[in-house]
Amino acid sequence: MNWTLTIGNKAYSSWSQRPWILLRHFDIPFTERVVPLDRATTSVDIQQHSPTGRVPALQAGDLVIWESIAIAEFIADRFPDKAIWPVDPDARAIARSLAAEMHASFTRLRQHCPTNFRRPQRAIAIPDDVRHDVDRIEAAWSATRQQWGQGGPFLFGAFTAADAMYAPVVNRFWTYDIPVKGETRAYMEAMMALPAWLAWIEGAKAEPWFIDKYEAI
Amino acid sequence: MNWTLTIGNKAYSSWSQRPWILLRHFDIPFTERVVPLDRATTSVDIQQHSPTGRVPALQAGDLVIWESIAIAEFIADRFPDKAIWPVDPDARAIARSLAAEMHASFTRLRQHCPTNFRRPQRAIAIPDDVRHDVDRIEAAWSATRQQWGQGGPFLFGAFTAADAMYAPVVNRFWTYDIPVKGETRAYMEAMMALPAWLAWIEGAKAEPWFIDKYEAI
Ligand SMILES: N[C@@H](CCC(=O)N[C@@H](CS)C(=O)NCC(=O)O)C(=O)O
Ligand SMILES: N[C@@H](CCC(=O)N[C@@H](CS)C(=O)NCC(=O)O)C(=O)O
Repeated sequence: MNWTLTIGNKAYSSWSQRPWILLRHFDIPFTERVVPLDRATTSVDIQQHSPTGRVPALQAGDLVIWESIAIAEFIADRFPDKAIWPVDPDARAIARSLAAEMHASFTRLRQHCPTNFRRPQRAIAIPDDVRHDVDRIEAAWSATRQQWGQGGPFLFGAFTAADAMYAPVVNRFWTYDIPVKGETRAYMEAMMALPAWLAWIEGAKAEPWFIDKYEAI
Repeated sequence: MNWTLTIGNKAYSSWSQRPWILLRHFDIPFTERVVPLDRATTSVDIQQHSPTGRVPALQAGDLVIWESIAIAEFIADRFPDKAIWPVDPDARAIARSLAAEMHASFTRLRQHCPTNFRRPQRAIAIPDDVRHDVDRIEAAWSATRQQWGQGGPFLFGAFTAADAMYAPVVNRFWTYDIPVKGETRAYMEAMMALPAWLAWIEGAKAEPWFIDKYEAI
Protein backbone atom coordinates (compact mmCIF):
# COMPACT_ATOMS: atom_id res chain seq x y z
CA MET A 1 0.00 0.00 0.00
CA ASN A 2 1.27 3.40 -0.96
CA TRP A 3 -0.91 6.24 0.31
CA THR A 4 0.00 9.92 0.44
CA LEU A 5 -2.30 12.42 2.10
CA THR A 6 -1.89 16.01 0.95
CA ILE A 7 -2.87 18.39 3.75
CA GLY A 8 -2.65 22.06 4.63
CA ASN A 9 -0.47 23.01 7.56
CA LYS A 10 -1.76 21.50 10.75
CA ALA A 11 -2.13 24.76 12.65
CA TYR A 12 -4.97 25.99 10.44
CA SER A 13 -6.33 23.25 8.19
CA SER A 14 -9.49 21.89 9.75
CA TRP A 15 -10.50 19.85 6.72
CA SER A 16 -7.09 18.19 6.60
CA GLN A 17 -7.28 17.12 10.22
CA ARG A 18 -10.31 14.91 9.57
CA PRO A 19 -8.81 12.17 7.37
CA TRP A 20 -5.40 12.52 9.03
CA ILE A 21 -6.72 11.77 12.50
CA LEU A 22 -8.86 8.96 11.11
CA LEU A 23 -5.92 7.25 9.39
CA ARG A 24 -3.72 7.76 12.41
CA HIS A 25 -6.28 6.50 14.92
CA PHE A 26 -6.85 3.34 12.90
CA ASP A 27 -3.12 2.77 12.45
CA ILE A 28 -3.23 2.92 8.68
CA PRO A 29 0.19 3.78 7.26
CA PHE A 30 0.44 6.85 5.02
CA THR A 31 2.90 9.51 3.98
CA GLU A 32 1.91 13.13 4.52
CA ARG A 33 2.58 15.97 2.13
CA VAL A 34 2.08 19.41 3.68
CA VAL A 35 1.23 22.48 1.60
CA PRO A 36 1.25 25.62 3.77
CA LEU A 37 -2.01 27.58 3.32
CA ASP A 38 -2.43 31.24 2.42
CA ARG A 39 0.79 31.78 0.50
CA ALA A 40 1.25 33.07 -3.03
CA THR A 41 2.02 29.56 -4.31
CA THR A 42 -0.55 27.64 -2.24
CA SER A 43 -3.20 27.31 -4.88
CA VAL A 44 -0.80 26.17 -7.62
CA ASP A 45 0.91 23.76 -5.23
CA ILE A 46 -2.36 22.16 -4.12
CA GLN A 47 -3.61 21.85 -7.69
CA GLN A 48 -0.78 19.46 -8.42
CA HIS A 49 -2.27 17.02 -5.95
CA SER A 50 -6.00 17.81 -5.88
CA PRO A 51 -8.38 18.49 -8.79
CA THR A 52 -10.35 21.05 -6.77
CA GLY A 53 -7.31 22.97 -5.57
CA ARG A 54 -8.38 22.15 -2.03
CA VAL A 55 -6.94 19.91 0.64
CA PRO A 56 -7.21 17.20 1.85
CA ALA A 57 -6.58 14.85 -1.08
CA LEU A 58 -5.50 11.25 -0.78
CA GLN A 59 -3.30 9.66 -3.39
CA ALA A 60 -3.57 5.87 -3.41
CA GLY A 61 -1.34 4.57 -6.16
CA ASP A 62 -2.63 6.29 -9.32
CA LEU A 63 -5.95 7.23 -7.79
CA VAL A 64 -6.60 10.66 -6.27
CA ILE A 65 -9.56 10.99 -3.92
CA TRP A 66 -10.66 14.46 -2.79
CA GLU A 67 -13.17 15.80 -0.23
CA SER A 68 -12.75 14.83 3.42
CA ILE A 69 -15.94 12.79 3.59
CA ALA A 70 -15.16 10.85 0.39
CA ILE A 71 -11.72 10.04 1.78
CA ALA A 72 -13.40 8.64 4.91
CA GLU A 73 -15.63 6.45 2.73
CA PHE A 74 -12.62 5.30 0.74
CA ILE A 75 -10.79 4.28 3.91
CA ALA A 76 -13.90 2.39 5.06
CA ASP A 77 -14.19 0.70 1.67
CA ARG A 78 -10.54 -0.40 1.67
CA PHE A 79 -10.53 -1.53 5.31
CA PRO A 80 -13.85 -3.33 5.82
CA ASP A 81 -12.50 -5.03 8.95
CA LYS A 82 -11.88 -1.76 10.75
CA ALA A 83 -14.96 -0.03 12.18
CA ILE A 84 -14.36 3.26 10.34
CA TRP A 85 -18.13 3.71 10.48
CA PRO A 86 -20.27 2.13 13.24
CA VAL A 87 -20.91 -1.56 12.55
CA ASP A 88 -24.64 -1.40 13.32
CA PRO A 89 -26.38 -0.40 10.06
CA ASP A 90 -28.76 2.06 11.73
CA ALA A 91 -25.95 3.68 13.70
CA ARG A 92 -23.91 3.82 10.50
CA ALA A 93 -26.71 5.71 8.75
CA ILE A 94 -26.86 8.28 11.56
CA ALA A 95 -23.05 8.59 11.58
CA ARG A 96 -23.15 9.44 7.90
CA SER A 97 -25.94 11.98 8.41
CA LEU A 98 -23.87 13.68 11.11
CA ALA A 99 -20.72 13.61 9.00
CA ALA A 100 -22.56 15.03 5.99
CA GLU A 101 -24.21 17.74 8.09
CA MET A 102 -20.74 18.81 9.25
CA HIS A 103 -19.50 18.71 5.67
CA ALA A 104 -22.10 21.21 4.39
CA SER A 105 -23.13 23.30 7.40
CA PHE A 106 -22.13 25.47 10.35
CA THR A 107 -20.67 28.20 8.16
CA ARG A 108 -21.36 30.87 10.76
CA LEU A 109 -19.34 29.03 13.39
CA ARG A 110 -16.61 28.24 10.88
CA GLN A 111 -16.28 31.88 9.78
CA HIS A 112 -16.52 33.46 13.20
CA CYS A 113 -14.17 31.01 14.91
CA PRO A 114 -11.43 30.13 12.43
CA THR A 115 -9.39 27.02 13.08
CA ASN A 116 -6.14 27.50 14.93
CA PHE A 117 -4.80 24.43 16.67
CA ARG A 118 -2.01 26.36 18.40
CA ARG A 119 -4.21 29.11 19.82
CA PRO A 120 -4.24 29.39 23.64
CA GLN A 121 -7.71 29.26 25.17
CA ARG A 122 -9.26 32.74 25.09
CA ALA A 123 -12.97 33.58 24.91
CA ILE A 124 -14.48 35.80 22.23
CA ALA A 125 -18.01 37.18 21.87
CA ILE A 126 -20.37 34.66 20.27
CA PRO A 127 -23.23 36.26 18.30
CA ASP A 128 -26.64 34.61 18.17
CA ASP A 129 -26.22 33.07 14.73
CA VAL A 130 -22.99 31.37 15.77
CA ARG A 131 -24.65 30.24 18.99
CA HIS A 132 -27.36 28.70 16.83
CA ASP A 133 -24.76 26.49 15.14
CA VAL A 134 -23.25 25.56 18.52
CA ASP A 135 -26.69 24.64 19.86
CA ARG A 136 -27.42 22.37 16.92
CA ILE A 137 -24.06 20.63 17.29
CA GLU A 138 -24.57 20.11 21.02
CA ALA A 139 -28.08 18.74 20.39
CA ALA A 140 -26.84 16.38 17.67
CA TRP A 141 -23.97 15.06 19.79
CA SER A 142 -26.23 14.63 22.80
CA ALA A 143 -28.99 12.76 20.94
CA THR A 144 -26.43 10.51 19.27
CA ARG A 145 -24.56 9.69 22.47
CA GLN A 146 -27.82 8.99 24.26
CA GLN A 147 -28.92 6.47 21.67
CA TRP A 148 -25.61 4.99 20.51
CA GLY A 149 -22.83 6.13 22.83
CA GLN A 150 -23.06 3.64 25.67
CA GLY A 151 -19.88 1.72 24.86
CA GLY A 152 -17.40 4.59 25.18
CA PRO A 153 -16.92 8.37 25.23
CA PHE A 154 -17.36 9.02 21.49
CA LEU A 155 -20.51 9.60 19.45
CA PHE A 156 -20.99 5.88 18.84
CA GLY A 157 -18.95 4.66 21.79
CA ALA A 158 -15.69 3.96 19.99
CA PHE A 159 -14.10 6.61 17.75
CA THR A 160 -15.43 6.56 14.16
CA ALA A 161 -15.34 8.75 11.04
CA ALA A 162 -18.23 10.79 12.49
CA ASP A 163 -15.98 11.88 15.37
CA ALA A 164 -13.18 12.62 12.92
CA MET A 165 -15.51 14.96 11.02
CA TYR A 166 -16.29 16.89 14.24
CA ALA A 167 -12.72 16.93 15.60
CA PRO A 168 -11.98 20.49 14.39
CA VAL A 169 -15.21 21.67 16.02
CA VAL A 170 -13.86 20.44 19.34
CA ASN A 171 -10.86 22.70 18.84
CA ARG A 172 -13.11 25.66 18.07
CA PHE A 173 -15.29 25.09 21.14
CA TRP A 174 -12.18 24.74 23.28
CA THR A 175 -9.92 27.52 22.04
CA TYR A 176 -12.68 30.15 21.81
CA ASP A 177 -13.93 28.95 25.22
CA ILE A 178 -17.51 28.66 24.03
CA PRO A 179 -19.90 27.90 26.90
CA VAL A 180 -21.15 24.31 26.52
CA LYS A 181 -22.97 21.71 28.57
CA GLY A 182 -21.14 19.23 30.80
CA GLU A 183 -21.79 16.32 28.47
CA THR A 184 -20.36 18.32 25.56
CA ARG A 185 -17.26 19.06 27.58
CA ALA A 186 -16.83 15.37 28.42
CA TYR A 187 -16.96 14.53 24.73
CA MET A 188 -14.41 17.26 23.96
CA GLU A 189 -12.09 15.92 26.65
CA ALA A 190 -12.24 12.41 25.22
CA MET A 191 -11.35 13.80 21.78
CA MET A 192 -8.49 15.92 23.10
CA ALA A 193 -7.02 12.92 24.95
CA LEU A 194 -6.84 10.75 21.84
CA PRO A 195 -3.25 9.91 20.82
CA ALA A 196 -4.07 10.80 17.19
CA TRP A 197 -5.36 14.22 18.32
CA LEU A 198 -2.27 14.86 20.43
CA ALA A 199 -0.01 13.90 17.52
CA TRP A 200 -1.80 16.44 15.30
CA ILE A 201 -1.42 19.24 17.88
CA GLU A 202 2.23 18.38 18.37
CA GLY A 203 2.69 18.62 14.60
CA ALA A 204 0.93 22.01 14.52
CA LYS A 205 3.17 23.37 17.29
CA ALA A 206 6.29 22.29 15.41
CA GLU A 207 5.34 24.17 12.23
CA PRO A 208 7.21 27.35 11.24
CA TRP A 209 4.28 29.04 9.43
CA PHE A 210 2.01 31.74 10.90
CA ILE A 211 -0.98 33.41 9.23
CA ASP A 212 -1.43 36.84 10.80
CA LYS A 213 -5.18 37.19 10.27
CA TYR A 214 -5.84 33.98 12.20
CA GLU A 215 -3.38 34.81 14.95
CA ALA A 216 -5.11 38.19 15.51
CA ILE A 217 -8.45 36.69 16.56
CA MET B 1 -40.23 -1.88 3.81
CA ASN B 2 -41.77 1.39 4.85
CA TRP B 3 -39.86 4.42 3.62
CA THR B 4 -41.10 8.00 3.56
CA LEU B 5 -39.05 10.74 1.93
CA THR B 6 -39.79 14.26 3.14
CA ILE B 7 -39.04 16.75 0.38
CA GLY B 8 -39.59 20.40 -0.43
CA ASN B 9 -41.85 21.21 -3.34
CA LYS B 10 -40.43 19.87 -6.56
CA ALA B 11 -40.37 23.19 -8.40
CA TYR B 12 -37.65 24.63 -6.16
CA SER B 13 -36.04 21.99 -3.96
CA SER B 14 -32.77 20.96 -5.54
CA TRP B 15 -31.58 18.96 -2.53
CA SER B 16 -34.81 16.99 -2.47
CA GLN B 17 -34.52 16.00 -6.10
CA ARG B 18 -31.29 14.09 -5.49
CA PRO B 19 -32.54 11.17 -3.33
CA TRP B 20 -35.98 11.24 -4.98
CA ILE B 21 -34.60 10.68 -8.46
CA LEU B 22 -32.21 8.04 -7.11
CA LEU B 23 -34.98 6.04 -5.43
CA ARG B 24 -37.20 6.40 -8.44
CA HIS B 25 -34.55 5.43 -10.97
CA PHE B 26 -33.69 2.29 -9.00
CA ASP B 27 -37.35 1.37 -8.56
CA ILE B 28 -37.25 1.48 -4.79
CA PRO B 29 -40.73 1.99 -3.36
CA PHE B 30 -41.27 4.99 -1.07
CA THR B 31 -43.96 7.39 0.01
CA GLU B 32 -43.31 11.09 -0.48
CA ARG B 33 -44.24 13.83 1.97
CA VAL B 34 -44.06 17.33 0.47
CA VAL B 35 -43.50 20.42 2.61
CA PRO B 36 -43.80 23.57 0.48
CA LEU B 37 -40.75 25.81 0.99
CA ASP B 38 -40.67 29.49 1.95
CA ARG B 39 -43.93 29.70 3.86
CA ALA B 40 -44.49 30.88 7.41
CA THR B 41 -44.94 27.30 8.63
CA THR B 42 -42.20 25.66 6.53
CA SER B 43 -39.53 25.53 9.18
CA VAL B 44 -41.82 24.14 11.89
CA ASP B 45 -43.29 21.61 9.46
CA ILE B 46 -39.89 20.34 8.33
CA GLN B 47 -38.61 20.09 11.90
CA GLN B 48 -41.21 17.44 12.59
CA HIS B 49 -39.50 15.19 10.08
CA SER B 50 -35.86 16.31 10.02
CA PRO B 51 -33.54 17.14 12.94
CA THR B 52 -31.82 19.92 10.97
CA GLY B 53 -35.03 21.58 9.80
CA ARG B 54 -33.89 20.92 6.25
CA VAL B 55 -35.11 18.60 3.52
CA PRO B 56 -34.60 15.94 2.28
CA ALA B 57 -35.00 13.51 5.17
CA LEU B 58 -35.77 9.81 4.81
CA GLN B 59 -37.81 7.99 7.39
CA ALA B 60 -37.17 4.23 7.34
CA GLY B 61 -39.28 2.69 10.06
CA ASP B 62 -38.15 4.47 13.25
CA LEU B 63 -34.94 5.73 11.75
CA VAL B 64 -34.60 9.25 10.29
CA ILE B 65 -31.68 9.87 7.93
CA TRP B 66 -30.90 13.44 6.87
CA GLU B 67 -28.54 15.05 4.33
CA SER B 68 -28.87 14.10 0.67
CA ILE B 69 -25.51 12.38 0.47
CA ALA B 70 -26.09 10.33 3.63
CA ILE B 71 -29.44 9.22 2.22
CA ALA B 72 -27.65 8.03 -0.93
CA GLU B 73 -25.23 6.03 1.23
CA PHE B 74 -28.12 4.57 3.20
CA ILE B 75 -29.84 3.43 0.01
CA ALA B 76 -26.57 1.86 -1.17
CA ASP B 77 -26.13 0.16 2.21
CA ARG B 78 -29.65 -1.27 2.16
CA PHE B 79 -29.56 -2.34 -1.50
CA PRO B 80 -26.10 -3.82 -2.02
CA ASP B 81 -27.29 -5.59 -5.17
CA LYS B 82 -28.21 -2.36 -6.93
CA ALA B 83 -25.30 -0.33 -8.32
CA ILE B 84 -26.20 2.85 -6.44
CA TRP B 85 -22.48 3.65 -6.57
CA PRO B 86 -20.22 2.32 -9.35
CA VAL B 87 -19.25 -1.31 -8.72
CA ASP B 88 -15.55 -0.81 -9.49
CA PRO B 89 -13.89 0.30 -6.21
CA ASP B 90 -11.76 3.00 -7.84
CA ALA B 91 -14.71 4.39 -9.78
CA ARG B 92 -16.75 4.30 -6.58
CA ALA B 93 -14.13 6.41 -4.79
CA ILE B 94 -14.22 9.02 -7.56
CA ALA B 95 -18.04 8.97 -7.58
CA ARG B 96 -18.03 9.77 -3.88
CA SER B 97 -15.48 12.56 -4.35
CA LEU B 98 -17.69 14.11 -7.03
CA ALA B 99 -20.82 13.72 -4.92
CA ALA B 100 -19.12 15.25 -1.89
CA GLU B 101 -17.73 18.13 -3.94
CA MET B 102 -21.27 18.91 -5.08
CA HIS B 103 -22.49 18.64 -1.50
CA ALA B 104 -20.15 21.34 -0.17
CA SER B 105 -19.32 23.55 -3.13
CA PHE B 106 -20.51 25.69 -6.06
CA THR B 107 -22.22 28.23 -3.82
CA ARG B 108 -21.78 31.00 -6.39
CA LEU B 109 -23.62 29.03 -9.04
CA ARG B 110 -26.26 27.96 -6.54
CA GLN B 111 -26.93 31.51 -5.40
CA HIS B 112 -26.83 33.17 -8.79
CA CYS B 113 -28.96 30.54 -10.53
CA PRO B 114 -31.60 29.38 -8.06
CA THR B 115 -33.34 26.11 -8.77
CA ASN B 116 -36.62 26.32 -10.63
CA PHE B 117 -37.67 23.16 -12.43
CA ARG B 118 -40.64 24.87 -14.12
CA ARG B 119 -38.69 27.81 -15.50
CA PRO B 120 -38.70 28.17 -19.31
CA GLN B 121 -35.24 28.38 -20.82
CA ARG B 122 -34.00 31.99 -20.69
CA ALA B 123 -30.38 33.16 -20.49
CA ILE B 124 -29.09 35.47 -17.77
CA ALA B 125 -25.71 37.17 -17.38
CA ILE B 126 -23.12 34.83 -15.83
CA PRO B 127 -20.43 36.67 -13.82
CA ASP B 128 -16.87 35.32 -13.70
CA ASP B 129 -17.13 33.71 -10.29
CA VAL B 130 -20.20 31.73 -11.39
CA ARG B 131 -18.44 30.80 -14.62
CA HIS B 132 -15.60 29.49 -12.48
CA ASP B 133 -18.00 27.02 -10.84
CA VAL B 134 -19.41 26.01 -14.23
CA ASP B 135 -15.90 25.44 -15.59
CA ARG B 136 -14.96 23.21 -12.68
CA ILE B 137 -18.15 21.16 -13.09
CA GLU B 138 -17.60 20.75 -16.81
CA ALA B 139 -13.98 19.69 -16.22
CA ALA B 140 -14.99 17.19 -13.53
CA TRP B 141 -17.72 15.64 -15.69
CA SER B 142 -15.43 15.47 -18.69
CA ALA B 143 -12.50 13.83 -16.86
CA THR B 144 -14.85 11.33 -15.23
CA ARG B 145 -16.64 10.38 -18.44
CA GLN B 146 -13.35 10.03 -20.25
CA GLN B 147 -12.01 7.57 -17.69
CA TRP B 148 -15.18 5.79 -16.55
CA GLY B 149 -18.04 6.69 -18.85
CA GLN B 150 -17.58 4.30 -21.75
CA GLY B 151 -20.57 2.07 -20.98
CA GLY B 152 -23.31 4.71 -21.25
CA PRO B 153 -24.13 8.44 -21.24
CA PHE B 154 -23.75 9.07 -17.48
CA LEU B 155 -20.67 9.89 -15.43
CA PHE B 156 -19.84 6.23 -14.89
CA GLY B 157 -21.76 4.88 -17.87
CA ALA B 158 -24.94 3.85 -16.07
CA PHE B 159 -26.78 6.30 -13.79
CA THR B 160 -25.45 6.30 -10.19
CA ALA B 161 -25.73 8.42 -7.06
CA ALA B 162 -23.05 10.74 -8.46
CA ASP B 163 -25.38 11.67 -11.32
CA ALA B 164 -28.25 12.11 -8.86
CA MET B 165 -26.14 14.63 -6.93
CA TYR B 166 -25.55 16.67 -10.10
CA ALA B 167 -29.09 16.41 -11.47
CA PRO B 168 -30.17 19.87 -10.21
CA VAL B 169 -27.06 21.38 -11.82
CA VAL B 170 -28.29 20.07 -15.14
CA ASN B 171 -31.49 22.04 -14.61
CA ARG B 172 -29.51 25.19 -13.79
CA PHE B 173 -27.29 24.87 -16.86
CA TRP B 174 -30.34 24.27 -19.00
CA THR B 175 -32.86 26.80 -17.73
CA TYR B 176 -30.35 29.69 -17.44
CA ASP B 177 -29.00 28.65 -20.87
CA ILE B 178 -25.41 28.67 -19.69
CA PRO B 179 -22.96 28.17 -22.57
CA VAL B 180 -21.39 24.71 -22.25
CA LYS B 181 -19.34 22.32 -24.34
CA GLY B 182 -20.92 19.74 -26.61
CA GLU B 183 -20.01 16.84 -24.33
CA THR B 184 -21.62 18.66 -21.39
CA ARG B 185 -24.78 19.14 -23.40
CA ALA B 186 -24.85 15.44 -24.32
CA TYR B 187 -24.65 14.55 -20.63
CA MET B 188 -27.45 17.03 -19.83
CA GLU B 189 -29.64 15.53 -22.53
CA ALA B 190 -29.15 12.02 -21.15
CA MET B 191 -30.17 13.27 -17.70
CA MET B 192 -33.22 15.14 -18.99
CA ALA B 193 -34.40 12.05 -20.90
CA LEU B 194 -34.37 9.82 -17.81
CA PRO B 195 -37.87 8.63 -16.82
CA ALA B 196 -37.14 9.54 -13.17
CA TRP B 197 -36.19 13.07 -14.23
CA LEU B 198 -39.32 13.47 -16.35
CA ALA B 199 -41.49 12.26 -13.46
CA TRP B 200 -39.92 14.91 -11.18
CA ILE B 201 -40.57 17.70 -13.72
CA GLU B 202 -44.14 16.53 -14.23
CA GLY B 203 -44.60 16.66 -10.44
CA ALA B 204 -43.17 20.18 -10.32
CA LYS B 205 -45.51 21.38 -13.05
CA ALA B 206 -48.52 20.00 -11.20
CA GLU B 207 -47.75 21.90 -7.99
CA PRO B 208 -49.92 24.88 -6.96
CA TRP B 209 -47.15 26.79 -5.13
CA PHE B 210 -45.14 29.72 -6.52
CA ILE B 211 -42.30 31.63 -4.85
CA ASP B 212 -42.18 35.12 -6.34
CA LYS B 213 -38.48 35.79 -5.80
CA TYR B 214 -37.52 32.70 -7.79
CA GLU B 215 -40.06 33.36 -10.53
CA ALA B 216 -38.65 36.86 -11.02
CA ILE B 217 -35.17 35.70 -12.08
N1 LIG C 1 -15.29 20.35 1.25
C1 LIG C 1 -13.86 20.20 1.33
C2 LIG C 1 -13.26 21.43 1.98
C3 LIG C 1 -11.77 21.57 1.75
C4 LIG C 1 -11.23 22.96 2.04
O1 LIG C 1 -11.96 23.96 1.99
N2 LIG C 1 -9.90 23.03 2.35
C5 LIG C 1 -9.20 24.30 2.54
C6 LIG C 1 -8.19 24.22 3.68
S1 LIG C 1 -8.87 23.68 5.22
C7 LIG C 1 -8.40 24.63 1.30
O2 LIG C 1 -7.85 23.72 0.66
N3 LIG C 1 -8.30 25.89 0.88
C8 LIG C 1 -7.59 26.24 -0.31
C9 LIG C 1 -6.61 27.35 -0.12
O3 LIG C 1 -6.48 27.81 1.03
O4 LIG C 1 -5.99 27.77 -1.13
C10 LIG C 1 -13.51 18.91 2.11
O5 LIG C 1 -14.41 18.38 2.79
O6 LIG C 1 -12.40 18.36 1.97
N1 LIG D 1 -26.83 19.80 2.94
C1 LIG D 1 -28.26 19.53 2.84
C2 LIG D 1 -28.97 20.72 2.23
C3 LIG D 1 -30.46 20.69 2.43
C4 LIG D 1 -31.14 22.05 2.17
O1 LIG D 1 -30.49 23.11 2.26
N2 LIG D 1 -32.47 22.00 1.86
C5 LIG D 1 -33.27 23.20 1.69
C6 LIG D 1 -34.28 23.04 0.57
S1 LIG D 1 -33.56 22.60 -0.99
C7 LIG D 1 -34.10 23.43 2.94
O2 LIG D 1 -34.55 22.48 3.57
N3 LIG D 1 -34.31 24.69 3.37
C8 LIG D 1 -35.06 24.95 4.58
C9 LIG D 1 -36.13 25.97 4.39
O3 LIG D 1 -36.34 26.43 3.26
O4 LIG D 1 -36.79 26.30 5.41
C10 LIG D 1 -28.47 18.22 2.06
O5 LIG D 1 -27.55 17.79 1.36
O6 LIG D 1 -29.54 17.58 2.18
